Formats: sequence, C-alpha cells, structure tokens
Amino acid sequence: MSIRIGILGYGNLGRGVESAIRQNPDTVLAAVFTRRDPGSLKIRTEGVPVVSVDQAADYADKIDVMILCGGSATDLPVQTPAFARLFNVINSFDTHARIPEHFAAVDQAAREGGKVAVISVGWDPGMFSLNRMIASACLPEGANYTFWGRGVSQGHSDAIRRIEGVEDARQYTVPVQEAVDRVRGGEHPDFTARQMHTRECFVVAREGADKARIEKEIKEMPNYFADYDTTVTFISKEEMRRDHAELPHGGFVIRSGVTGFDGEHTQIIEYSLKLDSNPEFTSSVLIAYARAAARLASEGQSGAKTVFDIAPAYLSPLSGEELRAHML
Amino acid sequence: MSIRIGILGYGNLGRGVESAIRQNPDTVLAAVFTRRDPGSLKIRTEGVPVVSVDQAADYADKIDVMILCGGSATDLPVQTPAFARLFNVINSFDTHARIPEHFAAVDQAAREGGKVAVISVGWDPGMFSLNRMIASACLPEGANYTFWGRGVSQGHSDAIRRIEGVEDARQYTVPVQEAVDRVRGGEHPDFTARQMHTRECFVVAREGADKARIEKEIKEMPNYFADYDTTVTFISKEEMRRDHAELPHGGFVIRSGVTGFDGEHTQIIEYSLKLDSNPEFTSSVLIAYARAAARLASEGQSGAKTVFDIAPAYLSPLSGEELRAHML
Repeated sequence: MSIRIGILGYGNLGRGVESAIRQNPDTVLAAVFTRRDPGSLKIRTEGVPVVSVDQAADYADKIDVMILCGGSATDLPVQTPAFARLFNVINSFDTHARIPEHFAAVDQAAREGGKVAVISVGWDPGMFSLNRMIASACLPEGANYTFWGRGVSQGHSDAIRRIEGVEDARQYTVPVQEAVDRVRGGEHPDFTARQMHTRECFVVAREGADKARIEKEIKEMPNYFADYDTTVTFISKEEMRRDHAELPHGGFVIRSGVTGFDGEHTQIIEYSLKLDSNPEFTSSVLIAYARAAARLASEGQSGAKTVFDIAPAYLSPLSGEELRAHML
Repeated sequence: MSIRIGILGYGNLGRGVESAIRQNPDTVLAAVFTRRDPGSLKIRTEGVPVVSVDQAADYADKIDVMILCGGSATDLPVQTPAFARLFNVINSFDTHARIPEHFAAVDQAAREGGKVAVISVGWDPGMFSLNRMIASACLPEGANYTFWGRGVSQGHSDAIRRIEGVEDARQYTVPVQEAVDRVRGGEHPDFTARQMHTRECFVVAREGADKARIEKEIKEMPNYFADYDTTVTFISKEEMRRDHAELPHGGFVIRSGVTGFDGEHTQIIEYSLKLDSNPEFTSSVLIAYARAAARLASEGQSGAKTVFDIAPAYLSPLSGEELRAHML
C-alpha cells in the first residue's frame, strides 16, 4: 500500500518533493495545498488535486504524511503545530537556535492529535546533525567542524536584495581550503568565522545605483558579512540568468578525535555532500523521513521527533532481512 | 549509574575497548574474561578482575553489557548465541555473507534469554553500512561505492603469513585514486575489483627462502590477490618493526545519485574514515552501541539488532534536550 503524501506550499521545496515522489515507488502524491488561488497553480503530476490550504482538514483521512514546505521564519512555527493535530507531518525547520521551543510546541500538538511530527529534516539540520551526533558518540574526545559550500545561501542572497539599488543577488558561501586541510590533517584549531568561510556576492545593480555604496553596505552588514572576507562582483541580468540559475550547495562535517590509553591515535570521520540542487536533495531526505513517519504512526507512536529519534531502517523501503543481506 | 562493561577476549579489540571505557565516563569496566590462564593476563585497569571464561555465568548480574572481542571465523558464531542467553552482548561479526544466519541464531538466543544483542558493530560492517543504507534511502536513484584503505588488512596479512618461507607480512589495501575521482565526479562506472583497489605487501622472508616463489604465490593467490594489481616488497625484521607496527585503516562510502523530474541534478554523499588505529576505532564504536544496548534492555527490549535498528540518540550520553539544543 502506497504512502499518500500531501505537499503544503509549492515553491522550490514543494516541487522537489513532487519530483522525489516519482523516485520512490512506495509513495504517491495525494494533493498539493496552497495559499494561492488553486486554479493559478500548475503542478507536474497529472490527476492530482491542487487545493486551498483552507480545505486541508477535509483531507485528513486521504493523506498519510503532510510535508510542510514553507519557510522557517514565519510559516513553519505556525503551520507545524496546527497541522500536527490533523496529520503526520514533516518539516525542514532550520532556525537552529529556536529548535527547542519549536520541538516543544509541535510535540504537544502532535501528542494531542495522536500524530507523528518529524521536525528539522534535511541536511543541516538533518544529515549533518546525524553525523555530528553519531561521530561525537563514537569519538567522545574530539572536536566537530562544519564547513558549508561552495553553495548558494538563500538567506544571504535575500539580505543583499534588501539593499537599496540592488535588483538581484546571489551569495556563495565558500569554505577556506587551508582551514579544511588543517582539520583533515588532525589539528583541532579554534577558528574564527573568517578563518572558516569566505562569502562571494554576485549583484545586479539597478540602473544608476551607487555601486560603491552597495558594496560597502554588503561588506559591513553585521551577522551576515562583517565577520567574513567578502567579495562583491557586479554582473548583468543576463549573466545572472546564465551563470547563477541553479541552487548548488554542500559542505562537510568533520569529527577529529583521539583514542588510546594516552590519546596517541588520531581518528577522523568526515561526512560530505556535493549537491547540484540543494532543494531537491532536501526534498529527497524529506521523503525518506515521510516513510519513517508513516511507519511509526502505524505502530501507534505519536509526538515530535527528530533525525536522532528514528532508527535508520525506518527510512528504507527494504525489509530488515533485505537490509541485513545487502547493506550491512 | 554507570554501565558495567565486560570484555570477552583481550586482544587488540579487547584492549581497545578497555581504553575506550576511559573516554566514556558513564561506562565502567567490570571484568575481563579470557580463555587463557587468568593469572597470565595483565590488564591496564587497576582493581578489575580477570576471570576464566568458564566462570562468566557467575557474573550475569554484575555486567550490563558483554562486549565479545573474538574473531568472526570461529569465536563469534559460537560465543554470541551462547552469551546472548545470559548477557546483553555486542559483537563486531564481519563475515558479510554469513550475517543473515548469524542474526537468526543470535536473535533466537537473545529472545529466549530476554537480552539485547547487537551484532556486526564497527565500521564495516557498522558505520559504513549505516551510511550506505541512509544514503540509499535519501537518493534512491544511484549507486554505492565502497573504497577501503589505505590500511592494513589483517586477513590478507594472515594469508601471506601462511605461505612457506614467510616469517612476517603486512598487507595494505589501497584505493585507486583514478576510480575515486571518477565516482566523486558523478560518474557511475561498473568497476572490476582491480580497478578499485591495489594491494601492497611487505614481507619478511625466512633466511634462505625462495623470494621469487613467495612473490609468485602471493600474486597468484585466488580471492585474496589474483584479481588485483599486487606489489610485493621484501623487508627486514627491523624494518617491519619500525615501519609497520601500527594498524591504520579507513576508506570511504560514496553514494552518487540523481534527482529532479528528468534526473538532471547529480547529488553526491560521501562518508570517509581516516583511522590511525583500526581496532581502537572499532572499540570506540562498540562502546557507543553498548550504551544503546543497555538502554534498550532497560526499556524491556530483547532480541538481535544491527546498526539499522537503533535510533541514533541511544548512542549518545547526552539527553534528547541536549542533543536538540547542541547537535541538531
């Protein structure tokens, strides 16, 4: 029996989930929910209804897992507890500092609704978190390093777009190779933000805009750019379209630790991602956890969970026997 | 309350577990069990009894988890079901082809004893398996590649030592860089064994032995060397002691997949280990899973499990709240 998936929000992530469903034969797209006029939305899967989010409750018994594809700033904190009363839900909530309060709110709602809610699924938080956690448990004496990139940071790109005179912008986060090499070599340095990443900005300025002022405003922007070596390159609209249309990303989590009676052996665990499409990879992880949520719910579980709480076998369409025979 | 660990078998792995216990303050070494004369064994932890394996049953209520540090060929298939009737157990059974039958035998014994038994823990099987499995679930359209090395293969070293005229030997498994680069570049080749790894052998010959014959026997040995490009270097006993005393290893698991409506985006997941000491890293993973086994047992679970069946949070000494606040 297929796992019936609902998608709430049809942006980059929602479209990614739609395409991931096609790669997972045990899942099927049941409906797409939108805050826009449903008639205005054209999806890629034939015969699947596009429904106003206001009608979502009518679908409570037609959907096994609802994947919430909104943003972490304003959508998910409201939507997730609301939907977790009615549906098993998955989200990719990624405001790290607010995860504890989000977990508490979602947990209460999901328990009241008797549903499973898996929050903060994707790659960071998500796969990177899983690797930080497992590596830390396997090498208790050591340090974790997370490098991001080379890839597009949507938050930093948006921050640049809010500057007066900017028409479009794309920001790439780039790990500093020397820092990566030191960690891979077994050192445990205390890095500043500047020592780990640089920031490359590609900006389309409006006609007549003061480029020197824009560059200065970017480089001095607190939190986003002031603590980094930042380069700003002005390009044309055509160059933006031609060279920066994709959303690649990636990075690596490195745990560098020691073992032995005298800590005499260095042991290094590295997990890395090289992604042509950040939203499609996140979507693909969301579908694997949707499978897990459906199974946990069918076992009678409820409440909020994270990637830490779910046994890996739940993610796979293969049986325990198959996994042991072919993957172990 | 500390988790009381028993060690059965005091070789490289047993000593690794002993040192790992010192790095995990929530664990304590309760006893070491041996088939040798207990009086002949000198362990590194003061005040801990060394006991004949024949007396192990007397320790059933003094040990929370018994870590079985014997070999996969003959020790673990017998010891694991026998001990799983009396203790929660962990092993590093690594004969991949025999895992299904081993799991079945251990599962029955552990259920009858009401104990938890986690088999095939370490890095391959173990961490590598976990990454193959999770990466396959997150990127269903793709291929897995496992490269080992550069590192000492004990099985291959032993095979060389059995050749007449060989006094000592060390075999390094080495990944072929060109193959690694192709996979990292997003290709999905079908490799032969020879295309993925080479084998470097360092051999101490007995005085007067026919080195040409030894080299030929190594290179033509079926399963172990015939399918690989193998180099044989004869060295002195002193060089062996000086340059090859350690047991480094490592390798990488790469999942190369595609996403998108037309498979247009390549996505690459890589997990890699660079280990100064293979047995100490394996031991360190064993301790993390011993923690999990103790917790699962205290929840009333029983039966055989693998790394696929255990939620990652069980591996960590941190609470769910701490993990969400600091690791997610």
